[in-house]
Amino acid sequence: MPDIGKLLWPKSIAVVGASSDVQGLRGRILETILSHPFAGKIYPVSRGANEVQALKAYSSVDVLPEPADLAILIIPAQYIASELERCGRRRIKAAVILSSGFAEEGEAGARMQNDIAVIARRYDMAVSGPNSEGFANIAAALCPTFSPAMDKSAGPIEPARALGTGQVSVISQSGGLGFAVFDRARPRNLKFRHIVTTGNEAALQASDFIDYMLDEGMTDVFLLLLEDVKSPETFKRVAEKALRAGKPIIVGKIGRSEVGSRAVASHTAALAGSNAAYRAIFDHYGVIEAQELDDMIDLAVGFLACGDSMPAGKRIGICTASGGAGVWMADACAAAGLEVPVLDDATRKSIDEYIPSYGTSQNPVDCTAQGVHKMGYATFAHIVAQSPRIDAIAVVVTARRSAFLEHDLPKLKSLKKDSRKPIFMWTYTLPAERSVEILNEVGYPLFTGSFGCARTMRAMVDYRAFRERTLNKPRARSTPHPARAKVHALLAASGAVLTEYQARPLLEAYGIGGNVYTFARSAAEVEAAVKALGGAVAVKVQSGDIPHKTEAGAVSLNVSPENARAAYERVLENAKRFAPAAKIEGVVVQPMAPPGREVIVGISRDKCWGSLLMLGLGGVLVEALNDAVLAPVPLDREAALALISRLKCNVMFGPYRGMQPADIEALADLIVKLSQFASDHADDIAEVDLNPVIVHGKGDGVSVADALILKRTLQQAERRTAAG
Amino acid sequence: MPDIGKLLWPKSIAVVGASSDVQGLRGRILETILSHPFAGKIYPVSRGANEVQALKAYSSVDVLPEPADLAILIIPAQYIASELERCGRRRIKAAVILSSGFAEEGEAGARMQNDIAVIARRYDMAVSGPNSEGFANIAAALCPTFSPAMDKSAGPIEPARALGTGQVSVISQSGGLGFAVFDRARPRNLKFRHIVTTGNEAALQASDFIDYMLDEGMTDVFLLLLEDVKSPETFKRVAEKALRAGKPIIVGKIGRSEVGSRAVASHTAALAGSNAAYRAIFDHYGVIEAQELDDMIDLAVGFLACGDSMPAGKRIGICTASGGAGVWMADACAAAGLEVPVLDDATRKSIDEYIPSYGTSQNPVDCTAQGVHKMGYATFAHIVAQSPRIDAIAVVVTARRSAFLEHDLPKLKSLKKDSRKPIFMWTYTLPAERSVEILNEVGYPLFTGSFGCARTMRAMVDYRAFRERTLNKPRARSTPHPARAKVHALLAASGAVLTEYQARPLLEAYGIGGNVYTFARSAAEVEAAVKALGGAVAVKVQSGDIPHKTEAGAVSLNVSPENARAAYERVLENAKRFAPAAKIEGVVVQPMAPPGREVIVGISRDKCWGSLLMLGLGGVLVEALNDAVLAPVPLDREAALALISRLKCNVMFGPYRGMQPADIEALADLIVKLSQFASDHADDIAEVDLNPVIVHGKGDGVSVADALILKRTLQQAERRTAAG
Repeated sequence: MPDIGKLLWPKSIAVVGASSDVQGLRGRILETILSHPFAGKIYPVSRGANEVQALKAYSSVDVLPEPADLAILIIPAQYIASELERCGRRRIKAAVILSSGFAEEGEAGARMQNDIAVIARRYDMAVSGPNSEGFANIAAALCPTFSPAMDKSAGPIEPARALGTGQVSVISQSGGLGFAVFDRARPRNLKFRHIVTTGNEAALQASDFIDYMLDEGMTDVFLLLLEDVKSPETFKRVAEKALRAGKPIIVGKIGRSEVGSRAVASHTAALAGSNAAYRAIFDHYGVIEAQELDDMIDLAVGFLACGDSMPAGKRIGICTASGGAGVWMADACAAAGLEVPVLDDATRKSIDEYIPSYGTSQNPVDCTAQGVHKMGYATFAHIVAQSPRIDAIAVVVTARRSAFLEHDLPKLKSLKKDSRKPIFMWTYTLPAERSVEILNEVGYPLFTGSFGCARTMRAMVDYRAFRERTLNKPRARSTPHPARAKVHALLAASGAVLTEYQARPLLEAYGIGGNVYTFARSAAEVEAAVKALGGAVAVKVQSGDIPHKTEAGAVSLNVSPENARAAYERVLENAKRFAPAAKIEGVVVQPMAPPGREVIVGISRDKCWGSLLMLGLGGVLVEALNDAVLAPVPLDREAALALISRLKCNVMFGPYRGMQPADIEALADLIVKLSQFASDHADDIAEVDLNPVIVHGKGDGVSVADALILKRTLQQAERRTAAG
Repeated sequence: MPDIGKLLWPKSIAVVGASSDVQGLRGRILETILSHPFAGKIYPVSRGANEVQALKAYSSVDVLPEPADLAILIIPAQYIASELERCGRRRIKAAVILSSGFAEEGEAGARMQNDIAVIARRYDMAVSGPNSEGFANIAAALCPTFSPAMDKSAGPIEPARALGTGQVSVISQSGGLGFAVFDRARPRNLKFRHIVTTGNEAALQASDFIDYMLDEGMTDVFLLLLEDVKSPETFKRVAEKALRAGKPIIVGKIGRSEVGSRAVASHTAALAGSNAAYRAIFDHYGVIEAQELDDMIDLAVGFLACGDSMPAGKRIGICTASGGAGVWMADACAAAGLEVPVLDDATRKSIDEYIPSYGTSQNPVDCTAQGVHKMGYATFAHIVAQSPRIDAIAVVVTARRSAFLEHDLPKLKSLKKDSRKPIFMWTYTLPAERSVEILNEVGYPLFTGSFGCARTMRAMVDYRAFRERTLNKPRARSTPHPARAKVHALLAASGAVLTEYQARPLLEAYGIGGNVYTFARSAAEVEAAVKALGGAVAVKVQSGDIPHKTEAGAVSLNVSPENARAAYERVLENAKRFAPAAKIEGVVVQPMAPPGREVIVGISRDKCWGSLLMLGLGGVLVEALNDAVLAPVPLDREAALALISRLKCNVMFGPYRGMQPADIEALADLIVKLSQFASDHADDIAEVDLNPVIVHGKGDGVSVADALILKRTLQQAERRTAAG
């Protein structure tokens, strides 16, 4: 790994392509660097000018008085490779390429982009870009970027008084959005450390920068704007490292809709995986996804202000002087999945002493204007914080006037020091500047949106719980299963499609399934099997050419001994009509599973993230409701249970419509085993479908009613042709 | 109706309880009034002082030199009634009561609140409050309120240059939130007309003020903050009036969560109906619900800036100079249910002429910084607006620098004039003040949130479409059905619970149901009925004491002639075990309905909104998914179809899993008929359940598989006891 320190903390910089025309980007970048008090040396490199913006200019990096630590390249795309090569030879160890016209432009551009990667590797250079907007190292006052957000006119790059003691860094593939986050965060007094835009990521990726900053140890919250992930393994490793270090990564996924991914593909030539897959990875590593730029900033404000005092649970106490605004906050809490419980009697009694009878101590605690006028907010927040029913406090204020906060200041300060439960402030009017200053000084996070405040509290509850769960145990590892070699050999010997009778032995080797069934090849065998099994059975055609049997009419359910032969003949006939060329291997005869909740458990491959386990609602509404969740493999029991709880319809696993609670332990066990299977055979398996899986009542386990494995050698397109 | 004009446009005001102590509310309100250039007369009324804040004070309204148009009352609750009486006698025709301590405080307070209503009626006075925060008439520079948002220090109450030519009024039951909306909207340069906070609404309600302002004709957008509705009929009439006038009502419902309604009930003693019912009413009248205060303001910005040029459809063209920010906007559009279609070839060709090869004309149109530098945004927006595939344009800018907008100004202006398709601007950085001014001057709505921008576009699309549909035809009216009298008589003669065999004749009189069935009272009758009907049947116990038969085991499905007697005996036995005291009237024998999509259609009564029709997903997942929608009755066919489309699982009505598209025409017809039934018998009926209703394939209609009617005389509690 090249030295990113040389890139972010250079002592000298060559600006290749620098110009005196500050209307153009080549002039703007130098102007921006020079407008901030960066202490290092700046060498403009220009083929035409001897002097650029009052600095001596050099005709080439070859003639610089020293090999600069960092080269900023802003010259036409076709000259980049040779210039980078020249930098390499000159022992410049880092480069940032701002020029556009690479992979986003087509094949020729992609080739030029590949050249950058090759040269970077050859000279062990830390190279960021191309198609980037540069970066800013706030601590070094170094801003090699043409972003208008770093204009001197936009204000100081460091807040006069920062909120809390922590720092935030932004890493963004989009230059515009990366610097926009910094710009929008400015009124919130966050202390930023780095803003790095990585563009097309020919060499260094966003994850590499996070990795460096984790080692640097000065960034407490990461804001990541992500279009795609070039190296999933690096991303996962770095996300896990950040989680263990307790440094939250807040991600804004660019292109999370279908039309968005189409646009990302067109403008960066990136091959992003599916959004469901990204979400699965984020969930698995505690990466917090935000939907809007300001949500990212709200989250950063919350994490920085609270430090280690994150809410231990979802129960919020609300203090307000406006009844309506208190309810508004309660509604926002409910929307974020938080609870606003009625307070305990002791707490209510203490509060009632201070409020007039038209207030209420229920929760939201309506202290009334009169109550707050007399006592200030801190007194009420302090009482509520002591309630055993409350994990965090949201104080609803109108910060339009600062006088009451000013008056409350000493009490607010001692509350901040004494309370281990975090306090969040929402102002329903816009805040006066002085109010912001006061709350800033105390270290309380101030939100102007009730939803932003509630979402932030919720994210912190989840992050804390997730992190504690994760730190308490090692992650599920890819320790191969004892049956791995055997199954590997069986897979190698199989055709591309393993229908149920072929798939079951492999799955059973991992403890999956284990249902009774018979494979039969003739009417007589079917009749014998039905008789032997007793009761109603299912008869299912087995053909590698018909992986989806139901739509072919190749399945008959509730077959009795009397109609076994007729059922056999009917399914064969249907199968042949559906796919005349199909090779039919026989039928599976199997007892009907007892009833229960129907789910689908499967494995699929994402083009970015590889094997993912899928759990979905089964049955007739599956397509109408599209209730499915994904997770990377392998999974341990806890992760499996967490996955189950993420299904929208998960309430059906509890006691439901007269049914016993479902055996979710058994479902989790199945998920763990299938995830191990998928992990062990990731190279060989494209898809596994256990559909349906019937989840019975507690203690009665699950029935895997059907199974199908598709090997990776077979392309989707070929399968369709064969089946159709 | 008393004259609200006297309240909002007084020529003289008595401030009863006025004080010189500007730290207290009684002093603040007079200070606030005096700090704005209101042209009318101000009479402080004070029992103690001869002069208040340098004005001559009067000891009582009785000794004022004239009967003031308006009295502002801010004295303890217990003195309000006698003071209001005094105002009435003095022929003061309007009063605003700011004092707290009424219905929100308990029974004694509620009695005092009732006194206010009685006195207001007696003297035909326009009375607002109690427990209100006053109001502001911006046009008259009259601000009788202690809200800090109306402090002179908070800035001018009118923008130097307003966006567009229209005006906004706020009507709010919550004083805090009402003025907060004004305060937050200030940087957006909206021209406000009235801000009225109505508090407990002892006399005048929010709807009354909207009604007045509609007649006044100067308010173009209403922002309504609503805890509850005292008179549903007034609300509906006014909402319909606003819709027909094309003046959108944007509502923020305070207490939309369960915990929120609990809190509303506690702080205002209001009996709000269910939130689902409110939503149904909003949908039915085109009232636009917003979730957050800033969303309300975004919507107002959109409506005011666009005037009559609302988007005709959901297809958005996005122009951007930042690829990432363009995608971010596309994601927001997708989340709001908008479309971002690939542009047509002709439009793409025109765009391609102006952008470098690393841009894209697909949509989002990435004009690139270079393209925008050369051509400005207006050129691109103009080309996109001409595409037949596009209904509205979202321009993504960084308004941190204003220079490029300044340069683009003439073209932006002519675009605004020429284009009939609306243009929306989203800035991903914070905007410079000058940028806001420029866009303001041109009349483009500027948003700082991508979601706010997208949601606004979507709301305008929906509002325009809904309004056009509604204006094109009269609303469904409560013209009584010819069978009304007959059914009314039958209902009057019935018990409290009408089980299927009793309910069906009533429903059939309205054309609902019409399935074949037999009512039987003995095993022999059941056997005969099963034989006569042929095929599998259902046998269902009929008892007014067991309205919910399935959970009692009092239903047997798929009964054949052979096991008819056994089935009859089993359901009777189960019913007796479930409710030993139940009077069992007999059983309904009925052919099994052919399969299809299962839904529930019913009628329920909301304590605020009365009879509502409910349509929900049926079957086993009904409770897990809670997919149900409500609408007021009666409904016409179009409203019924709109209701069906609002089900989350509505995709299952299309061609689905091998099934034909469902007969939603027949379902809509059933809904219309049941809504007429409910409307005709609203006084008599508490609940109707058609559950399940099976929707068959197109042309095959629906089967009402069961029916139950509960009369209004029976209380829920009594029913439970009877059944259990």
